[in-house]
Order: sequence, then C-alpha cells, then structure tokens
Amino acid sequence: MEFVTALVFIFIACACGIVWAIFNWMAVHKLEIHHKHEGLTELLQGAEQEKIETLLEIGEHIQDGAQAFLKEEYTDCSVFLAIMAVLLIFISPWSSLAFVLGAATSMLCGYLGMAIATAANFRTAFSAITSLSNAFQMAYRGGCVMGFLLVSISLSILTLIIIIYNAIIVRSDDNNFEDLVTMFDYVAAYGLGGSTFALFGRVGGGIYTKAADVGADLVGKVEKNLPEDSPKNPATIADNVGDNVGDIAGMGADLFGSFAESTCAALVVSSTQLRVVQGDTYVIEIGQLMYPLMVSAFGIGICILVSAYAVYISKVNHINKIESTLKFQLLLSTVALSPIIIGIAYWCLPADFVMVAADNSIQLSELKPWHAFLCSLMGLWSGLLIGYFTEYMTSHSYTPVREVAKACGTGAATNIIYGLALGYLSTIVPIVAIAITALLSMKMLSFYGVALAALGMLSNLTIGLAIDAYGPISDNAGGIAEMSELGENVRESTDALDAAGNTTAAIGKGFAIGSAALVSLSLYGGYLTRIQTYKVGDQFPFAEGAKIDDPIIFAMLLIGAMLPYAFSAFTMKSVGKAALQMVEEVRRQLHEHPGIYAGTEEPDFRACIAISTKASLKEMIPPGLLVIVTPTAVGLFFGPYAVAGLLPGALISGVQMAISASNTGGAWDNAKKYIEAGFYRNEAGEVKKKGSDEHKAAVIGDTVGDPLKDTSGPSLNILIKLMAILSLVLAGAFCRTGWLYKPE
Amino acid sequence: MEFVTALVFIFIACACGIVWAIFNWMAVHKLEIHHKHEGLTELLQGAEQEKIETLLEIGEHIQDGAQAFLKEEYTDCSVFLAIMAVLLIFISPWSSLAFVLGAATSMLCGYLGMAIATAANFRTAFSAITSLSNAFQMAYRGGCVMGFLLVSISLSILTLIIIIYNAIIVRSDDNNFEDLVTMFDYVAAYGLGGSTFALFGRVGGGIYTKAADVGADLVGKVEKNLPEDSPKNPATIADNVGDNVGDIAGMGADLFGSFAESTCAALVVSSTQLRVVQGDTYVIEIGQLMYPLMVSAFGIGICILVSAYAVYISKVNHINKIESTLKFQLLLSTVALSPIIIGIAYWCLPADFVMVAADNSIQLSELKPWHAFLCSLMGLWSGLLIGYFTEYMTSHSYTPVREVAKACGTGAATNIIYGLALGYLSTIVPIVAIAITALLSMKMLSFYGVALAALGMLSNLTIGLAIDAYGPISDNAGGIAEMSELGENVRESTDALDAAGNTTAAIGKGFAIGSAALVSLSLYGGYLTRIQTYKVGDQFPFAEGAKIDDPIIFAMLLIGAMLPYAFSAFTMKSVGKAALQMVEEVRRQLHEHPGIYAGTEEPDFRACIAISTKASLKEMIPPGLLVIVTPTAVGLFFGPYAVAGLLPGALISGVQMAISASNTGGAWDNAKKYIEAGFYRNEAGEVKKKGSDEHKAAVIGDTVGDPLKDTSGPSLNILIKLMAILSLVLAGAFCRTGWLYKPE
Repeated sequence: MEFVTALVFIFIACACGIVWAIFNWMAVHKLEIHHKHEGLTELLQGAEQEKIETLLEIGEHIQDGAQAFLKEEYTDCSVFLAIMAVLLIFISPWSSLAFVLGAATSMLCGYLGMAIATAANFRTAFSAITSLSNAFQMAYRGGCVMGFLLVSISLSILTLIIIIYNAIIVRSDDNNFEDLVTMFDYVAAYGLGGSTFALFGRVGGGIYTKAADVGADLVGKVEKNLPEDSPKNPATIADNVGDNVGDIAGMGADLFGSFAESTCAALVVSSTQLRVVQGDTYVIEIGQLMYPLMVSAFGIGICILVSAYAVYISKVNHINKIESTLKFQLLLSTVALSPIIIGIAYWCLPADFVMVAADNSIQLSELKPWHAFLCSLMGLWSGLLIGYFTEYMTSHSYTPVREVAKACGTGAATNIIYGLALGYLSTIVPIVAIAITALLSMKMLSFYGVALAALGMLSNLTIGLAIDAYGPISDNAGGIAEMSELGENVRESTDALDAAGNTTAAIGKGFAIGSAALVSLSLYGGYLTRIQTYKVGDQFPFAEGAKIDDPIIFAMLLIGAMLPYAFSAFTMKSVGKAALQMVEEVRRQLHEHPGIYAGTEEPDFRACIAISTKASLKEMIPPGLLVIVTPTAVGLFFGPYAVAGLLPGALISGVQMAISASNTGGAWDNAKKYIEAGFYRNEAGEVKKKGSDEHKAAVIGDTVGDPLKDTSGPSLNILIKLMAILSLVLAGAFCRTGWLYKPE
Repeated sequence: MEFVTALVFIFIACACGIVWAIFNWMAVHKLEIHHKHEGLTELLQGAEQEKIETLLEIGEHIQDGAQAFLKEEYTDCSVFLAIMAVLLIFISPWSSLAFVLGAATSMLCGYLGMAIATAANFRTAFSAITSLSNAFQMAYRGGCVMGFLLVSISLSILTLIIIIYNAIIVRSDDNNFEDLVTMFDYVAAYGLGGSTFALFGRVGGGIYTKAADVGADLVGKVEKNLPEDSPKNPATIADNVGDNVGDIAGMGADLFGSFAESTCAALVVSSTQLRVVQGDTYVIEIGQLMYPLMVSAFGIGICILVSAYAVYISKVNHINKIESTLKFQLLLSTVALSPIIIGIAYWCLPADFVMVAADNSIQLSELKPWHAFLCSLMGLWSGLLIGYFTEYMTSHSYTPVREVAKACGTGAATNIIYGLALGYLSTIVPIVAIAITALLSMKMLSFYGVALAALGMLSNLTIGLAIDAYGPISDNAGGIAEMSELGENVRESTDALDAAGNTTAAIGKGFAIGSAALVSLSLYGGYLTRIQTYKVGDQFPFAEGAKIDDPIIFAMLLIGAMLPYAFSAFTMKSVGKAALQMVEEVRRQLHEHPGIYAGTEEPDFRACIAISTKASLKEMIPPGLLVIVTPTAVGLFFGPYAVAGLLPGALISGVQMAISASNTGGAWDNAKKYIEAGFYRNEAGEVKKKGSDEHKAAVIGDTVGDPLKDTSGPSLNILIKLMAILSLVLAGAFCRTGWLYKPE
C-alpha cells in the first residue's frame, strides 16, 4: 500500500470521528434545563423550581471542582514532564518532541473527557425525570464524545508526527529502512509521553476519587446513616468530582497510553524486522508498515456506525435493557470489525514477507497477511471474551455476585471472604485468554504479533471508552438526582443506569488490563531485541537471551513480581490516609454546624475538595517514584539482564492482581446495589434493603472495594506499561552501565 | 568425610533429639490435675471442683475430636497415597517404597504432634492458674516435643533409607557415582511422599480449622455477642480441635515436606554434579555428600541446648517477656549454628571440588567448602531476618499493627483496607532476602547452593517448629480457660500467651514460605537439569534452557502465576461454604434449645465437629486436584518446556500471595488482641475494649484474616513445592509426550 493512500484513509477516519464526537457534544448541550419543561410539575412532585436550581448548581460545583483539580494536577505534572523532556533531549531532540506531544495529547483528551462528562452528568439526571431512555441516551452520548475524541485526536497527531519525521529524517534512498528504524525509535517517545502522564492521571485521579468516596461513605453511610450522595454530606461533591477526574480523565489517559504504546511498539518492531525479499536483498517501504494504524482508523469508522445504532435504533425503555444494550455494542463492533481487519491485512501488508533478526538472518519466513490478521483477531476476540466474562463476574444478574450478596447474610466478614475469592477466581479466564493470544501471536510473528494483538484488542477502543465513560456519568447523575432530591422514581432510574455502569466500568478495566499486558509484552520484546543487538567491539555480550535459571534473572523475576504488591500497598494506604482526613473534616463540619444534619445549613464542600486534591497530589509521589526509579536503578546498577527479569516478573504478577482487584471491587459494589434494589431475600424470605444488617455488611465490602477497583487495581496497568517502555528507552544506557553485576 | 563417621553423628543427634523430646513429653504429662492443688481455692474464686472437671472434660473432647479427624483424614488419604505408590512402581519400586516411607513418616509426626498438643493445651490452661511462667513452660515444652520428634524421626528414617539403598543399589566399584545418582533419584521420592501427604494435612486441616473458627465467630461474636470460646457456643470445641489438626499436624506436615524435599534436592543435585578432580577423572564418595544431613544433625544438637535455655534459665514471669523469650530462641539458635555450619563444611566437604554439567564438562570450578557454608549461612540468616521482620509486621508491639488497630476507629472497611495494605507491604523484605539468597547461592553453587540455602534456613527447624506449635497450644489453653470459666486473671495470662503465639505462628509461616520458595527453586533446578539431559538419538532437544521470550514459556509463566489465585479462590470459598454450614448448625442449636444460651443446657458440639470434618475432606478435593493435575496435564500435553514456564510462574506469584495473606491475617488477629487488651484509645482518649464498635470492626478483620492466614496462605507452600517435585519425578514422561506442542 502507498503511504499517501494510507494517510488519506487515516485522516478521513479521524475527521469522521471528530465530527461524530462534536455532533454528540452538541446533542448533549442542546438540552437546556429550565423548570418549565413539559410535564415536569407532576413528575417532580412539587417545588420544581428549587430542585432544578439545585441540580444546576450542583452540576456547576462538580464542573468547577474537576477543573480546579485538573489545573493543579496538570501544573504539577508539567514540571515533571518538562524535566523528563529535557533529559530525553540527550537521547534525541526528536524523542523529546514526540514525548511532549504524547503527554500533551493525553492531557488534552483527559480535559475534553472531563468537560463532556461534567456537562452530561446533570443533564442525565434531568433527563431521568422524563424517561429512562432519554437519560441513557444522554449518558451514552457523553461517553461517545470521550471515546471518539480521544482515539481520533491521538491517531491523527501520531500520524502527523510520522509524516513530519518521515519527511525530515528518512532519506529518499532505495533502501531506506535504517532511517525508518531510527525514525520510529523517535516516534516511540509519543507512547512514553502518554504513559508518563497516565501515571499522574491514573494514580493521582484514583487516589482523589477514592479518598472522597471512602471518606464520604465512612461518615455518611456508616456513622450518620445518611443515604449515598446525601446533600447533607460535605464530601459528596468531592466524591462526584472524583468520578470525573479518576474514572474519566484517569481511565482515558491509561487507555490512550495503551493505544499509543502498542502502535509505537508495532511500528518499532516492524520497521526493524518486517522485510520483503527482493532478489537477494531485503526491502521495506513505510506504506507497508501502516497496517496497525489502518486498523485503528477503520475501527473508528465501524464504531461510528455501531454507536449510532445505540443512539438512534435501540430503545432503552426498560431497566433490563440497559446492560444488554451496552454489551451488544461490544459484540456488534467486534463482529463488524472482524472482516474489515482481514481485508486491511491483505490490502496493506506485502503478500509475502519475512521477519529478520538483528544480524539480518531470517527469523520467521514465508509470512502472509493472514498471520497478521489472525494476531489482530485473536486480540479483538480475546478482548470481547474478557469483557463478557468480566460482566458475568461483576454483574448482579448472575450467580457470582448473588453469592457474594448472599454472604452478606452472615455479616461483613463472609462478604469480604466471598468477594476476595470471586476476584481471585476471575483471573482464570482472562489470563488463559491472554496467554493463548500471547502464545500464538508470538509463535506467528514474534513480538510484532503481540503488538498487533494488543492493537486488535484496542481496535474498538472508541466503543470500549464510550461504555466505560458512560459509567461515571451515570454514577454522577445518580448523585446529582439524590442531592437535588428529585424523588425516588428518578433515583431508581439513575440507580439502574449506575449498576450497569459498574459492570461496564469493570469491563473497561478488563480491556485496559488485557491490553496493558499485551502492550507490556510487546515492549518487553522490543527491549530484549535492543539489548541482544547491543555490541561491544565485535561481541554481542547479551546475545544469550533471558534464561529463567540465570541467577540474576530469577532473582529479579521474584523482585519484579513483588513490585505490584508494594505498589498496591502504597496506593491502598494513600487512599486510607486521605479518607481518614476526609472523615475528620466531615465529622468536624457536622459537629460544629448541627444545621447541616438538620438540613438548614449548607455544608462546606470546598474544604473536602481541597483535602482530596492536596492528598492525591502528595500521596501519588511514593508509588510514582517506585514505578520510575525501580527499573532505572536496577538497570543502571545491575545491568540489562536484571531488567530482563524484572519486567516479566512485574508483568505476570501485576496482571493477576489488577484483574482480581478490579473484579472484586466491582462485584462488591453490585452486590450492594443488588440489595438496595430489593432483590435480596434472607432465609426467612424477607426482603432486606437499605438500612438492614445485610446492607450494612454490603456497604463495608463496597468501601473496601473502592480503592481496589479504582485506585490500586487499574494503576497496576501503568506500572507494567511504564516500566516496560521506560526500560526500552533506557536499554542502551543499561548496557553501558550495570556496574554491580556482570554476566559471566 | 567417611560415610560411617557421618552416620554415627547423625544417629547420635537424632537419638539425643528423641530423648529430649521424650523428656519434655514426660515433663508435660507429669502435671496431674486435681482440684486439691495447692492454693487453688482462692485463685479459682470458688466452685473449683466443678471448674477443674470441666477443664479436664474439654481437654478430652478436643483430644477425641482431633483423633477422630486425623483417623478419617488418614484413611482418606491412604487410599490416594496407595494409588500414587502403585503408579510410582512403574518408575521404580524403590521410589515407591521411599514415597510410602516419606508419607508414613509425615503422618506419624503429625499424629505425635497432635497428641502432645492436646495433652499440653489443658495443662497450660491449668498452669496459668498458678503462674504465667508455668503456663509458658508447659506450652513451650509441648512445642519442643513436636519440633524435636519431627526433625529427629524424619532425619533418622531418611538416613536409614540411604544406608539400605546404598547397600543394595550401589556397587562397590571405584567410580560408583552413576549408581549414586540412581540411588538418590529413588531416595528423592521420600520428599514427594512427605509433600503429597502435606497437601492433605495443610489444605484439609486448614479448611477444618477455619470453617470452625469462622463459623464460631460469625454466630457467637457477631450475632449473639458471646465472648470468644464461650462454652455456650456449640462450635467452640471444633474450633479448638481445628488448631490441633490444622496448625499443628498441618504445619508439621508442611515443614516436614520442606525439610525432606530440600535434603533430597541437595542429594540429587550433588550426586549428579559435585565432583572431585583426581588426575584426569572425576570422583565422588557418598560420605562427601553428607554435608546437608550433617547440618541438620548438628542443628538438632544446638537446638537442644537453646531450648533447654528457655525451659530452665529464662524466666517468663511477666507478659512482656513472652515474645522476647521466643524471639531470643530464634536468635540464639541462629548465632550458635553459624560457626558450627562453617566447621561442618570444612569437615565434610572435599577441600577442592567442581560442579559438572550433564555432558561431564566443568560448569563451576575451583569450589571450596566456603562456597557451601556461605549458601547455608545465607539461608539461615535470611530465615532469621524474615522471622524478625514478620514479627515486626504482625506483633502489636510495633507501629504497623497499631495503625491497623487505629483504623478500626473508622470501622471495619478501613481496618480491612489497612490490613490488606500491610500484607502487601510485608512482602518487600522477605522477597528481597529470598531473592538475594537465591541469586548468590545460584551464582556460587548453582541449584546445589539453593538447596543448601533452604537447608540452612531449616537448620534450626526444631526451634522454629517449637515456637510455632507453642502458638496453637496457647490458643487452645485460652479457649479451655474461657470454657471452664477459670476467671479473668487466668484468661489474661492465656491471652498474652496467645497474642505472642499469633506472632510466632506468623514467624513460622514466614519460615515455611521462605524455605518453600528455596526448596521449590532447587527442585526446579533439578527439573531443568533432567529435561536438558534428555536425549533423543544423538540430540538433546531441550538443551536450550528456559527462555522467557519463548512463546510457550511466557504463556505458561502467566498461567503459572494465575494458579495461586485459582487455588486461593478454591480454599477461601471452601472455608466460606463450610463456615456457613457451621453457622446454620449453631443457629439451629441455639434456636431449638434456648437452654444453651441460658447456660442450663449443654450444646451438641459433636455435630459441629462432624460438619468441619466432612466439609474439609470434601472441600479439599478441588484445590488438591488443581495442584496435582495442572503440572501433569500441562507436561503431558504441552511438553517439558511448558512446565519449565509453569513452575517458576507459580513460584514467584505464589510466594508473594502466601506472605501477604499470612501477615495480613496475623496483623488483624493481633489488632483485635490489642483492642481487647485495652491498649486502644480513641481520639477522645477513651479506652475501647470488647463490645465497642472498634472491637466489632476488629473482629470482622480477624474473621476475614482467618482463612487467609491459616488456609489459603500457607497452603500455597504446598502448591509451589508439590508441583515442582511432581514435575521432577515426571520429567522423563513429559519429554516423551508433549503431544500438542513441539519446540521449533
């Protein structure tokens, strides 16, 4: 395929994606809220003027809080990113530039996501007054804006970088693939930029949101018997802000990182290894490397159609239809993309190609386009499998969560025991899926195959992000409905939307973890290639490969597998500490101002927002340092072999912890929702709802699950990805240092 | 060293160990309990006749329950062991015989341990009436019987097997090391036998004890507000029986497995690889391989002196002295053994030796005895470090547990969050210690070094077991004191003994995990050597070694790392399910017989014992099958490379989970004890004890921690060891099969 043809298609797809996002953005903003809305008087059960005003006011507070946090977070991390950018200049100014662009794109997408989410949340609450279908539409359209903007913007900027770097760096020789390799090495820093910012977004945002959530629950639900999102609870607004900065901006940054890194990994590996045999030389042209980007581009196109189906055709007029509609989006996009991916492979890739090793010997021969599309398809369908299985494990429509809910009948302890067991058990299917995908794609196309599998899993990322962002928007809508006292009917609708959102959030996390594992593996492959081709004089001192029975590699596998535990300990405790501060503030307010509890006085929610903001920015430093300093120090002191053990250790241990933490938390949350919805009956057949001992036990599980599912679990994605890409960038430095340990 | 000299020393040491155990056994049994004991009348606050009778009766019930369970367990597992023994005949009748002896020894030691523990527990409770010092002595002497019997018996039987097999199998040629290799291959099945029985002991015992404990707590403490070990709770006796079958017999079987396996691993590896250069040939004599057994033998001798110090010299006359005395035992034995280990190395090992590879090339040259003793010493001191660090993390004398206790102030959720974070954090130091030990000992002596490190860690196993078994004896004593209503003073003493016991139990688990990791690694080394030397025609198809970037190896690393999660899910849920059955039974009894709660009617504790027995024997099947079937099936279908990835995956992931689960559980238990002892003050400075909200939150944490620390956590040791030794035994079969996957 010609480079120019590919570019045309990519830009058209990105443009369509952006237009579709803007269209949905406008559709969301079109809803003007006023108290004279048709038929509202009966629906709101009186005092509508005041309620609508409260709703608007709360929406504004959440928006302000989220913007204020992002501003502080962006300021803080800009300093750090600037330092890293300056250091990267020593590797290459082009790398530094790509790094800055990657970080900036991620920041921009995070901001835009937050903006649409905070615009859609109160509108969703308002729409829930008139109909469930309207509310669903509003929340889902909000999610679509986030998904399409993120993927389209990041793909177009990456493509732009490639065009410019190609024009400047690559000479127009016949056999220019050495320049191509160098060029894509520089481009790879785009992924590093995205991932570094994601560290701030995911970890900082995760601590923010859960400090507020846990703090609010501890005092509100447990001590004072206030309902969730009670307007009397000073921490409620901070909790709702948290959903936007953690689950929207943080999740977006994480998945942007996965997307950028896997694309970069595919480009780096393919430019180094993918060749066409022409007589007795090997050639490659840049157009033939565009397959991964084309998959993403067509992914945008297909997902527009799929999401249009949800918006225009499917009618979510009953609570039971919410989850199935969202799930169907995933299925539909997967099915529709499958033939497209096959077609693109034959269109873009050479009809016959080989993969060569660093010494120009042929590693894998007689490769055909079907090798490539099989890798992508395995990734895509593994993603769907992980998504559906995650839904099964975390939705209260199925046995696992109902068992957890039932365990609440004997108290919080059995709830916790069953929930932990559920999370552990839920690793089996995703891990087997990832393992088989990794096995077959490595067998077929080595690490290029793994990168393609990761991209395949992310080819319907727009839909993944849309249904994922739908979750916090609905969660917020529920909070706003509660705070503006819109009545039980409305709250029932938003609760149902929210319960489905918990499940889609868990699905989104499943995707994020699965793709992070594959991305990290492909980056590890890039790292191994780098150190194996490092040359001292006439020798390749690291040509041997990473053997498990090599002492330093085994020791580092063990230490690598410990890192996710240390990291989780830091993040869990950060949430605990920040939540305790929040509890003290809430107690102080309720104690000093009894009017708040009586409902005659407004709580000072700004104080709570300030606590979450400050705590999260401070508490993210230790886990952040762990991720950045550990591989760097191990590499510099113990050399490249040590890192070759550290990375897979962290990867294989971290992915298990991340899956089990996310699913445990999701299951507890939905077990609680199951009880709240009145589905739970005790042995005597009595329905037990809010206020019962069973519900109290469920709330404890939910509170424990909060940091697991929204802070420590998903942050592990960043751990395994960022360590890998950082090591890849620093591989050369590790080979030249490694003072303390030399291989035999 | 001459073989005969070594044998003499080993048997003398074993004899001394057994004599010392019998002596302590007699000292325990010497205490005859009757109500006319001097000065008892005032101490017991009246009604002494009845209380003493209750005490004796309860002691008997516990003894009967434990014996009944062991009988059923032994019957069930004998069938399974017999099947395995028959299958092993196909490998070699000698292997089968050694396997049976290993399993039988482990069963015998478990039974003897249970016998002394159930004799010491009520005597400890009785002694606590007169003085803390007497009670401590009684419990510690009980632990000593267990420790010395187990190590002495298992070492002497292993030595006997070596003598007999040596006489029959090894021809008296000059250069007989091929026979030696074959012989030690057969001997290695002794370890497999021990480890297979340990599967039943640890997993079955673990489920038994925690089903009873959790069930008793759920109804008793949480619902009915009964104190722990209340005589009104029908599940109390089952709980106390559980301590004896799980924490005594199960723990003993686990550590017997570690001891037998690491000795066997050292013998197998050294007979294959350790050689003395004589002119242009390599020779070795059996006497020169006796170093590992000699370390264990001298370990027994030193530990007799060290434990005599605790029994005769140190006076535990104050609560504060309990923990320090027990800790000092560890320190003393470590310090005393260090020079001895150095001396034995120079005495037993050749002054110069080499390690050879399978093709008779020299792998490591110019080795000296100091290489060997350094490995052992690293193991020994890592063990101490792990022990001390575990104590720091799980004792309520230090900050970590106090922080967890403080977190109870905001409810059960923060208690759980802080406890989980503590467990995750507590992996750092043990993992770094194990990693450094593995790194250096592999560097120096390859996998022989790792086996020596494991044995070094276990060289003071007698003391380790003694302080470990002390724990459940004290726990039982507390229960018996409570049930026979011996008064608050007595309960305070036994509570203090018990709190120290929680810590020593955690230390014991630390040792068990650390040694399991090293044992498993050395067995993995044996496995790799086996498959690398497997020959088809003139080729070694598996000569390459286990490379992480080999597709099948990476995929299996990932799946291996998932196994501990699946295994924990099974065991946790087993406990949960069995506990719910127990809850129903207790509720039924309390409901149908109101006299039980009023104290006028005896509960039917036999029904509860039957539930625990039945549930544990049934529920251990799925996790048991997972451990045995997975490596076998993977090896047979996917070949030896797949297993070469599976084993380290399970090892590096399992060891983290085991450490964090044990320490989390220990910390929660002691946080609860901290509150019960009246050390906890809330923000207003009020002391909060039993019955407060803080205490209720702590009880929830403790209940969640029960299956983590006593079932799923320690059972993971068996997972990583048994999978490794089973694969070692089946390595040849894997090389001949592996139908589904062939290396390139």
